[in-house]
This record gives sequence, structure tokens and C-alpha cells, in this order.
Amino acid sequence: MGLNFEVSATTDAGGRRAELHLPHGTVQTPVFMPVGTAATVKAVQQESLEQLGANGAGAEIILANTYHLYLRPGHELIRRAGGVHRFMSWKRPMLTDSGGFQVFSLSKLRKVTDDGVEFRSHLDGSKHFFSPEHSMEVQIALGADVMMAFDECVETPATWQRTRDSMALTHAWAARSKAYFDAHKNEVPWAAVPTALDCHPERSEGSPHFDRVPHPSQSHRDGWDSDRLAGRTQCLFGIVQGGMFPDLRRESAERIVEMGFDGYAIGGLAVGEPPEVTHEMIARALEILPKDKPRYVMGVGYPDQIEQYARMGVDMMDCVLPTRAARHGLLFRTAEPGDSDGGSTVRMNIKRVDFAEDQRPIDPACACPVCQRYTRAYLRHLFVSKEPLGATLNSIHNLAFYLDTMQRVRNSLAGV
Amino acid sequence: MGLNFEVSATTDAGGRRAELHLPHGTVQTPVFMPVGTAATVKAVQQESLEQLGANGAGAEIILANTYHLYLRPGHELIRRAGGVHRFMSWKRPMLTDSGGFQVFSLSKLRKVTDDGVEFRSHLDGSKHFFSPEHSMEVQIALGADVMMAFDECVETPATWQRTRDSMALTHAWAARSKAYFDAHKNEVPWAAVPTALDCHPERSEGSPHFDRVPHPSQSHRDGWDSDRLAGRTQCLFGIVQGGMFPDLRRESAERIVEMGFDGYAIGGLAVGEPPEVTHEMIARALEILPKDKPRYVMGVGYPDQIEQYARMGVDMMDCVLPTRAARHGLLFRTAEPGDSDGGSTVRMNIKRVDFAEDQRPIDPACACPVCQRYTRAYLRHLFVSKEPLGATLNSIHNLAFYLDTMQRVRNSLAGV
Repeated sequence: MGLNFEVSATTDAGGRRAELHLPHGTVQTPVFMPVGTAATVKAVQQESLEQLGANGAGAEIILANTYHLYLRPGHELIRRAGGVHRFMSWKRPMLTDSGGFQVFSLSKLRKVTDDGVEFRSHLDGSKHFFSPEHSMEVQIALGADVMMAFDECVETPATWQRTRDSMALTHAWAARSKAYFDAHKNEVPWAAVPTALDCHPERSEGSPHFDRVPHPSQSHRDGWDSDRLAGRTQCLFGIVQGGMFPDLRRESAERIVEMGFDGYAIGGLAVGEPPEVTHEMIARALEILPKDKPRYVMGVGYPDQIEQYARMGVDMMDCVLPTRAARHGLLFRTAEPGDSDGGSTVRMNIKRVDFAEDQRPIDPACACPVCQRYTRAYLRHLFVSKEPLGATLNSIHNLAFYLDTMQRVRNSLAGV
Repeated sequence: MGLNFEVSATTDAGGRRAELHLPHGTVQTPVFMPVGTAATVKAVQQESLEQLGANGAGAEIILANTYHLYLRPGHELIRRAGGVHRFMSWKRPMLTDSGGFQVFSLSKLRKVTDDGVEFRSHLDGSKHFFSPEHSMEVQIALGADVMMAFDECVETPATWQRTRDSMALTHAWAARSKAYFDAHKNEVPWAAVPTALDCHPERSEGSPHFDRVPHPSQSHRDGWDSDRLAGRTQCLFGIVQGGMFPDLRRESAERIVEMGFDGYAIGGLAVGEPPEVTHEMIARALEILPKDKPRYVMGVGYPDQIEQYARMGVDMMDCVLPTRAARHGLLFRTAEPGDSDGGSTVRMNIKRVDFAEDQRPIDPACACPVCQRYTRAYLRHLFVSKEPLGATLNSIHNLAFYLDTMQRVRNSLAGV
């Protein structure tokens, strides 16, 4: 059994407060998932991720990218390490994408056939082939709690006919993904993998140091080999496509739901279309998707957008925006009286000279460790000086801002 | 009063276990000081620095570079922020170098006269002038606990006569540094600087958030404005030069000691000479330097070297090596039976393919948070993938290794 989804409250607008129980733990939803492309949320320590947010609960689920990990360090290496959880030392839930979106956006040469996609690595130009079956095989090796069906992302703009053909391919691939997954889902890499301790018996004999401090491999073992993983399997989400056409979105949702997945994603959005169109496509799909399964919109968005979608009934979202913006010096903060643009969130460009002697925290209303300790003046200095600490502190703040946004939405949905 | 130095144990070899009391706190010596060039120890959060080491005591003193901070963000900006402690949110002791070494090593165009050094910025080529008086003025603006006299670092190799002339200039500059410092040492930037709270009265009114969590500016105020800083001043160390000539090293130590500083540094070493020569020059200077003042060797060294110098009677050392090596994937670990080179420390190049599936921590004998949690395989992946987290984790480990080395030496010197 991979997944258990318990809705505790639903609003008239369709928003729901729920708990998503996964093999590696429970996720409070609606949830925003930080993106850890190469088994690392860029510039942020796992220790920091575990403590993010005003309530200190941290990120309850993060995402890793199948395409990147397949190319480097390779999924078989990660399988031998016991899966991506152990590889990166992350004990909480994780989700892997299917690789499809990255193949379409990062690979220069690609050739799509009914069977799958041939592409060249963005790293070294080497030739590779992803089919639905291969994507499943790779994602099983990675061992995330949630896997995604292999889909085709249609280019934008695309005609109705081109979009419908692409959607049909996505549906065929979804069925093949599910068939492969059903046949192989017991091959999780979490099973008895030797711990560092087992590998190195000299470390189990208790040097004086180990008497003082519990050894990592011992505490790892406690965390990794607990009963909670026994008999658990990964779960698989289907992906709704259909481009920017409401009728296709509805049709795609119907087809994917008929196949029966553990959860449902809405893909192919936030690829350049106007926000009203994104909103419309999400709304059309949500009308069809079952209310008792988690619903995930991939690759969104700005803080006001993730709040809006959560209130519509989206349970999960992910985006590189908070971390990527952070590395470019763009920081989110709560709007204050006097801010001109009228929204609830303000974007600050920390490199602006206005901040050179600004001794305030990024966001006076934020409880994150960065706002608790560091000034805008210092963060500007780090950014202007290209100091790596700047990217780290900016990322921690932006992620905390996103997580706090979702905490606020969850409280609101629950009527707290 | 800037400094109080209490020696609690001395060995036959001259090594001493002591406490160095400075305005911002007490430092257990012998001590290794991490280098925070631009008011940041590269890629490491202040929070991590505070917890480094097997005993969790963290770095008790760090270094910042006057030359870099003078150029960017500028010493007057830092003075207005209340000094570099507040600017970077570091409440523990700090030391600034004089800028001399960096002017000599980083500036392409420089012209030395008796009055000082004219140089061009490595950032934008702009023209600047540092005299002993100006170095003192800048260091007072930065407000570190320990300042360094402005010195000339002679190029290496250099003749006896060239070295002696340079040394004489260093002595003249030391006297001028001390005269300026004595006349201005009450100008510390720690005095009543408005806190973030004072600047922004709306933040003192207690939003619900502030009722839950003490606001940073409140806790900052507790830390920054406590009585311990009242009436305290910075202190000034003199620098012994003399190149690679034992007679000049002794002569320089005698002249500098006659001037009467709060502590004494040995400069101009680890600039390419063989380790035996470094050792010899340190030994000659230590013969002259008073036993009741702290003694600091600048810019050293490898772990076995800092241990060796501490056992000779050196109380303070700093070096970019642990952090710079970390960014290049070079990690230090304790030697194990079977390691070929016979020393007590082994250098690992984490990018080597041998580590690709090595599930051990960097150093099984290390209690640092990186060795408690992450594998060599993961650190190799981060390094090979150029992920910023790699530099961070590598730096934390190497710094912890250095601090633990010094903790071991301190215990040994104290007979523990």
C-alpha cells in the first residue's frame, strides 16, 4: 500500500485540508514541495529543510528530478545505495518526476516515437532513450514515495489537433507506466540495504568516540529500517495533459482517472501562458478529478498563485521559483501598508542600492532563521560580493516564505 | 582594556593552555581561527560556525579581512552598522588583519613609500592608499576585538639587506600604528547604535507573531548591548617580520616587543618556504616574545603544522586552507591503520571515482554534523555536479577537523 489520503475539511470553493500518509511519513496538505533537482535543494542543507517555516516543522516532502539523477550519478548507483532517501540522507517523503518534462526542455536533440523518446544528455551529448517502462524502472530505483507516469509535454503554443495527438500519446504512456509499475512495485530499494555500519564492521565495535555520541550509522539504521517501511511500496500518480484547451483538459482527466492512479497531477502548465489560462485549465481538470485522491499541479508558482490554487482544491505543488529567484537575489516578503502594488506579497531585488544600509530583516513578519538574524544590508553585501552564503540564506528565506504561505492557507481551510 | 590572557598550563616544549578574554567573549587557546574574508566564512552559515567541533562549542573567534571589507562594502558603511560583528551577526570575538598582506598579494599595481602603500583595487582598478594610520582607522571602523599593526610583507625570496630594509619599515609602521590606535581606541563602533527595533518602532508594538517568538532585534539587543562591552576597547597586536633570516626574526621580535602591544604575531611565513624554515623562524621569534601575551602565527597551516606550532607555544593561528581546500574537494580525515603515508592526517580528494559508492562518512572518527549524516558517495556526487551544498558540507567538515585538532592539542597541553 503506497498512500492514504484523509480529508479533514473542505470549503465551498473546493479547497481541502488533508493529510497525505506516505511510506516515509505524513504530509500536511495543501503542501508546497521544494525542488531538489540533483538530490539537493540547491544551496540548502537537509538540516535547514527539516526546520523551515514558522512552526519549525520543515519541508515535509521534497522533489527530485529523475532526468538529472538518471544521468548523474545514475539510478543504479542510487538503487545500490538504498534509494535517493538514503543517498541524500532525507528521511521524509519524496516525489520524483517522470523525466518527461526535462527531456523536453533540456535535451537539444530528441526524437519522439510511440515507443518513447530518444534524447541527448545536456551534460555530455550522449544518447539515451526513455520509454514509460524505463522511466518507471528508473523511478523505482530512486525509490521516492511518489512516482509520476511518463508523459509528453506539448510545446506551446500548439494547435488543438497537435495537442490532442500529444495527449493521446500521454494516455497510452500512462497506461504503460501503470502496467509496468503494477508488475514491479515490490522492487523498492528500501529493502534490507547494508547500512554504513554493516559495511564497516570495525565501526560497530565502539571506539571511545562512539561511546560519547551515537554513531550516525546507528541513528540512520533506526530511521531507515523502522517498521514503517515494512511492506510499503511506492505509489504512482497519473498526469493530466491537454494543453490550453478546456475540452481536452476534461477529456484527459477522464481518461487518466479511468486508469486508476494513487493520485492525479495536472501537467503542462506554467509554460508561458497567461495566468488566467493556467487558472482555467486547473479548474477544468479539478472538476473531473476524484475528491478522495491527492491532486497535484506541477511546476507552479508565485506565492499568490499557490495560495489561489490551494483554495481551489489543489493539494500539492512544486516549483523551482523560490530557490532560483533566491539565487538571483529576488526575495519574497509580506506586503506592508504603503507598498505600492497592492498584492499580499512583495518581491524585493536585494541587490538594489536602497538596501545597502537597511538594517531590517527581509520580512519583519517572517519567523525564519534568516529574518531572525540577518539584515537586508548584509544579504545585499553577500549578493553583490557573489558570496555563496547569499544564495543559501536567500533560499532558506524564500522557502520558508512559501511554506508559511501554505501553513496560513491550511489553517484557513481548516477554519483555524 | 582590550585583552586579558591567562595561562593555566605550560609544557617543557613551551606549549601553553590558556584563555584569551576579549570584549566579545573568551577564547580557549591554542586556537585556530576560520577566515571570513568578506564578513562570511565562505559557504558556511554563522549558525554552523557556532556549533562546530566535537564539543559543540563552535568557532570561538573568526577572522575578517580589512582589505576586502574596506573595498566592499566599505568600512564607513560597516561603522554605521555598528561594526563587523553586527553587520554579519557574529557575537563572538573577531580579528581583522591590517590589509597589508592582501595589498601585497592581490593588488597588481602598488607603490610603497615610507608613508604607506598606494595600490589599485582588484575589483575595479580604482586607486587607494593605505598608511598605518589609515589601516588603524579602517580597523577601528570594523571594530574587531583584535586589530593588527600595518606591516610590509617582503617578497620571497629576498636578500638579507632587502629583508632588513623591509623589516625596518614594518617597525616604523608598527610604531605609527600604535600611536594612532592609542589616540583613537575609544572610537569603537559598538557604542549605542540603534538596533533594528529602534529603527522601526512599528516592530516593537508586538504583533501576534512577536508574542509567540521573541523578535530578533530584541534578542540582538540582549546580545549586543550587554554590559560586557561597556568601557571595553579593541586591542592591537604587533607583527614580527624578518623574512627567512633567524637574526632578523630575533631583532624584529625585540623591536616589536619594546613597543608594547597587547599580543604579538609572526607574519610573512607560509609564503612558499620549506616547512623546516617556517618552523625555524617561528622558534626564533618565540624565544623573544613575552610568555604572558598571546602569540599568533599568521596564515598557517596544515593540521599537522598547526598542532606542531601550538605545541611550541603558538596560541593563535588562521588559514584559508580548510575552507579553500573544501571548495576544491580536498577533505581532511584521521589516518587509519593501513593508510600509506604514515601521518596522523590523510587528505582525500572527494572527486575520485573510488568514492562514488563509498557509503562511509568522510571520517569515521569525526563527530561533525557532516560525518554524522552524509556519505562520501553523496559528497562526491555534490562535488562532481558542482552543487553549492558540496562546498558548504566540505567546509563544515574541514573546519570541524581543524577545531577538533586544536581541542585535542589543548587537552594534551592541559594534561587532560
